[in-house]
Amino acid sequence: MKTLVILAALLCFAATAVAEECIPCHREKTPAAVRQWEESAHFKAGVGCEKCHGTDHEKMKRGEARVDMKACAPCHKKAFDSHRQSRHGMGLHSGWGCTRNLEGRNQRECGFCHDKDSAEPLSTVQCARFLKQSAEMGEIGCNYCHNVESSCASCHSNHMTDLKIVRDPASCAKCHMGPDHPQWEMWQTSLHGTLYGTLGAKAAPNCQTCHMPGGSHDVSIGITMSSGGIAYPSEKAAPQREQMIAICSQCHAPAFASRELARGDTIQKQSMAIVKEAEKIILDLADRGLLDPMPENRPPHPLSGNKLVLDSQLLYEDTSHIERLLFKMKKYDYARTIKGAYHQNPAYAHWYGNAELKMDLVDIKAEGSRLRKAGRGAAPAESAGIEAELKVLRNRLERGDISEADYQKQKQLLLDKFLKK
Amino acid sequence: MKTLVILAALLCFAATAVAEECIPCHREKTPAAVRQWEESAHFKAGVGCEKCHGTDHEKMKRGEARVDMKACAPCHKKAFDSHRQSRHGMGLHSGWGCTRNLEGRNQRECGFCHDKDSAEPLSTVQCARFLKQSAEMGEIGCNYCHNVESSCASCHSNHMTDLKIVRDPASCAKCHMGPDHPQWEMWQTSLHGTLYGTLGAKAAPNCQTCHMPGGSHDVSIGITMSSGGIAYPSEKAAPQREQMIAICSQCHAPAFASRELARGDTIQKQSMAIVKEAEKIILDLADRGLLDPMPENRPPHPLSGNKLVLDSQLLYEDTSHIERLLFKMKKYDYARTIKGAYHQNPAYAHWYGNAELKMDLVDIKAEGSRLRKAGRGAAPAESAGIEAELKVLRNRLERGDISEADYQKQKQLLLDKFLKK
Amino acid sequence: MKTLVILAALLCFAATAVAEECIPCHREKTPAAVRQWEESAHFKAGVGCEKCHGTDHEKMKRGEARVDMKACAPCHKKAFDSHRQSRHGMGLHSGWGCTRNLEGRNQRECGFCHDKDSAEPLSTVQCARFLKQSAEMGEIGCNYCHNVESSCASCHSNHMTDLKIVRDPASCAKCHMGPDHPQWEMWQTSLHGTLYGTLGAKAAPNCQTCHMPGGSHDVSIGITMSSGGIAYPSEKAAPQREQMIAICSQCHAPAFASRELARGDTIQKQSMAIVKEAEKIILDLADRGLLDPMPENRPPHPLSGNKLVLDSQLLYEDTSHIERLLFKMKKYDYARTIKGAYHQNPAYAHWYGNAELKMDLVDIKAEGSRLRKAGRGAAPAESAGIEAELKVLRNRLERGDISEADYQKQKQLLLDKFLKK
Repeated sequence: MKTLVILAALLCFAATAVAEECIPCHREKTPAAVRQWEESAHFKAGVGCEKCHGTDHEKMKRGEARVDMKACAPCHKKAFDSHRQSRHGMGLHSGWGCTRNLEGRNQRECGFCHDKDSAEPLSTVQCARFLKQSAEMGEIGCNYCHNVESSCASCHSNHMTDLKIVRDPASCAKCHMGPDHPQWEMWQTSLHGTLYGTLGAKAAPNCQTCHMPGGSHDVSIGITMSSGGIAYPSEKAAPQREQMIAICSQCHAPAFASRELARGDTIQKQSMAIVKEAEKIILDLADRGLLDPMPENRPPHPLSGNKLVLDSQLLYEDTSHIERLLFKMKKYDYARTIKGAYHQNPAYAHWYGNAELKMDLVDIKAEGSRLRKAGRGAAPAESAGIEAELKVLRNRLERGDISEADYQKQKQLLLDKFLKK
Repeated sequence: MKTLVILAALLCFAATAVAEECIPCHREKTPAAVRQWEESAHFKAGVGCEKCHGTDHEKMKRGEARVDMKACAPCHKKAFDSHRQSRHGMGLHSGWGCTRNLEGRNQRECGFCHDKDSAEPLSTVQCARFLKQSAEMGEIGCNYCHNVESSCASCHSNHMTDLKIVRDPASCAKCHMGPDHPQWEMWQTSLHGTLYGTLGAKAAPNCQTCHMPGGSHDVSIGITMSSGGIAYPSEKAAPQREQMIAICSQCHAPAFASRELARGDTIQKQSMAIVKEAEKIILDLADRGLLDPMPENRPPHPLSGNKLVLDSQLLYEDTSHIERLLFKMKKYDYARTIKGAYHQNPAYAHWYGNAELKMDLVDIKAEGSRLRKAGRGAAPAESAGIEAELKVLRNRLERGDISEADYQKQKQLLLDKFLKK
Repeated sequence: MKTLVILAALLCFAATAVAEECIPCHREKTPAAVRQWEESAHFKAGVGCEKCHGTDHEKMKRGEARVDMKACAPCHKKAFDSHRQSRHGMGLHSGWGCTRNLEGRNQRECGFCHDKDSAEPLSTVQCARFLKQSAEMGEIGCNYCHNVESSCASCHSNHMTDLKIVRDPASCAKCHMGPDHPQWEMWQTSLHGTLYGTLGAKAAPNCQTCHMPGGSHDVSIGITMSSGGIAYPSEKAAPQREQMIAICSQCHAPAFASRELARGDTIQKQSMAIVKEAEKIILDLADRGLLDPMPENRPPHPLSGNKLVLDSQLLYEDTSHIERLLFKMKKYDYARTIKGAYHQNPAYAHWYGNAELKMDLVDIKAEGSRLRKAGRGAAPAESAGIEAELKVLRNRLERGDISEADYQKQKQLLLDKFLKK
């Protein structure tokens, strides 16, 4: 790999100016950057400052000369191409929305968030939470990681080229940690991670072994879920699964690997059923006007206005307590259960995941019960009851929860019951 | 130790067939397993595949030939025996219940869960939470760790025999981590753990130093609490404590060690008193029919049916919000407080433990107050009040909370007060 | 540095008795202590037991001869002086209150907690939470870390003098971790920490690099917030900021460092605004008598009796649920947001910090709404409404939330509205 990089760098040699002008001053101003560059493969291959940073010094001083991946691409074509194929290379910028108005944005990227010729964002755009942030929090809290689509430095760091950096799971930990996707923590305390910690790479795999086999930059290899936790359609998932089993089979019997991964699939389905039960409770409360506050009394959702949003665009602010509980459930606990299962970590699959998921459901049921009771207390008269029930039924029909026939049948039952009173 | 293992292995040499048949094929199918075995002490001592796996290839292919501890026992008798004596060797399988119907189960194990000739599980059986899990979650989330009673590979891993693995605290971390018992995390960030991290074993102890002294496999040495956090009776606890102080005294003055451990004991009692206060609030709510939902309106508890269960069989699902809070309190926060204190970790003893414990009590009191107020709102008439109060009093008598004399006195007071109105 | 220590020790040589008397017995009683001392720079410099421990053996045996920093000061003057200047050296003992009645306490220390000649503690004293603890929890949970003001051993450990110990971030982790200030965790998983983990000190800074530059013991260098998260007045903050930028500039362009730190400042202000919004909700509930329980119905606050306390003396026990939520918000989530931003850790700034902060606000608003509704249910009559509103308005005036003119105007509006009914 190192050889490859040096070779690629050598090909660029002719085009590289020696960094004669920049260095004397920058040895004072940014000593570590200069030192790191001088120890890098870039230096050895004659790749100087201008090659990556260009020559517009004023722009650099304004902090507007971030080195985009496109600067690296000509020399590191193979890595660039497989990165662009991967989940790292596409779609993660969705968090940025169009608010960033990036210069020279590739037009094909619009299709990620918009139907052709539509200015309305698709419901799959991953950015409502980003759109609620201050510019500062958006920068450190969102884009710091989500700029991986356009910046090789996300993983490789700025001036050092030592491949030890990106071959260490710590380089992944920077982003793949925390309440929403603690892949680093769960690997580190799994059998794989602990053996790796004790005996190193000869004894057990790290992130790179399974997710970047052979140095590939396509980190999506063998993954059968989309980022919202939604399983791929089986025609797409089956070849991915085969690829992952091939990776596991370097150490394990394929049948064993297959069973372990299939268990993850089953746990994914079981966990999603628990989430769906919680969503149903919230939808019913919304139908009855019992959320506190109701969506119409909140600041509008950045993408959906005053509609109730429970899908992957769910917010954790300007919402009701029960929806906030659902946020924790879906984004944190559901994710930990599944990822914990796929990474063979019992504490994450069970305690940090499944147990929390089930406790969330207890809390959501309890809050639902409280809101319904409070709602009954406030109900003005009996006739309001039947009207509310009929509206709930209509909403179910419109959401596709029940068929037209079911709707008619249940409506009749409600009316009969009301008239008998 | 290594010498011992090799010696033991040599004794088995005669009985060991050379793995001639398996290897050529398995070098393809499970290359890491073969490679690890070839680098192991087993290989050097001529311990081949059949010795551990047997010869029924069909069974192996069905995944039913897991290597039980009994396969290791004949050669590793001393380790096996002290393991069986320890908490690792008995009782942890309780999580499995009888649902597993393990083949060839040792009949003496029944006594762990059942009184002689009784099919009713004892209340000390640690399995209600397991019994609620799906088969898949039970496997990865429960049995992955709880199989330590029957599988040496739990700690030693499958084909590697390098003792570095089991002498590294990371090998304990796999199970002894997470919200319920973060022993690994609290050791790692204690003075012991940080000195160990910086200067290694010469400067500070790790898990093995204190809990497996001299390579003993009896991990219960010197521990004075049962797994539910309940202190041993003093006649059993005193000799255990002496053993632990002897271990501490390799570095510390015995009086210092004794004081430090006694502080843990006191904190255990103080913390238990907080838990008991919370339990009392919940019992009172149950007496008044104010839990939401009441036990009779829930799916039955796997061991106790529709009775209220607040002991170590407490569930985190299909329960009320306030009981869910108690679960967090007992299983997570109480455990962290005590274990944090015994492991000299201020952040775990105080912030992750004691502070959470006390916040749980605030939340439980608040929820109790809310439920009582909601209950009063629903109370139909004054006379219901006195009946409910008398029932609560009777329940207290039956639970042994108050004496017969107290019961009579308080009953009279209630009646007097009622009649005076 | 090592040379300096040895030199200083040599100056003390004449005064040091050879530890002839202690060692034979302590080699048995406290073997590690003896071994560590024999391998220490103290041993090489002839600094024996008596030099630090004195000669009162009876006192030592009662555990009352803890080695105070003052014993180290004569030889380690420079370190002692800069430590005393720093936040480590002053004020942290505030947690201890006056309950400890430390022997020979320096009278100037009184001024930290009291105005001259006043027995009333200042509201800035950091000890209400300590005063609520049992002696045992106070010891392990509070003083274990907060004794840093008076004990060099807090960081240097007892008998070892290897500077590796205090140059390792692990030595800081012991205290600077956990829910309230996970500086260690957020550094470890930041770009700085992960590069340090992979390539060591040549690639990235650790705690000591930025907070103890050049071996200084003034850990407050370059920090612009007081421990309650309150920003310094700008005349004090500006030179501190300059110092920190100078430290960053060893590697980074000053303009870059300045921008990164300024972003932290902005996030601090934004986060404080969220906290203030929550406090306002709680103050309003208190004004209306709707907290459950109200301060007058709780055990008195150790410093403020039955007054409502929402400042840095906020308790996490004997309080209402909504104040408990505020505790989590201020002490944990606000702190993590800001410190995460200053330490360039996206997961701490956003998920562990900002997202939790905003979810806290959702929960506090929901609890406020519930309490207000429950309060309205209990309101006896309409006239009670106007009286309560006027009292709320008076309270706001008294707290300085509104001006006298505003008070008069809003009062008139209330009265007009009431009379019109």
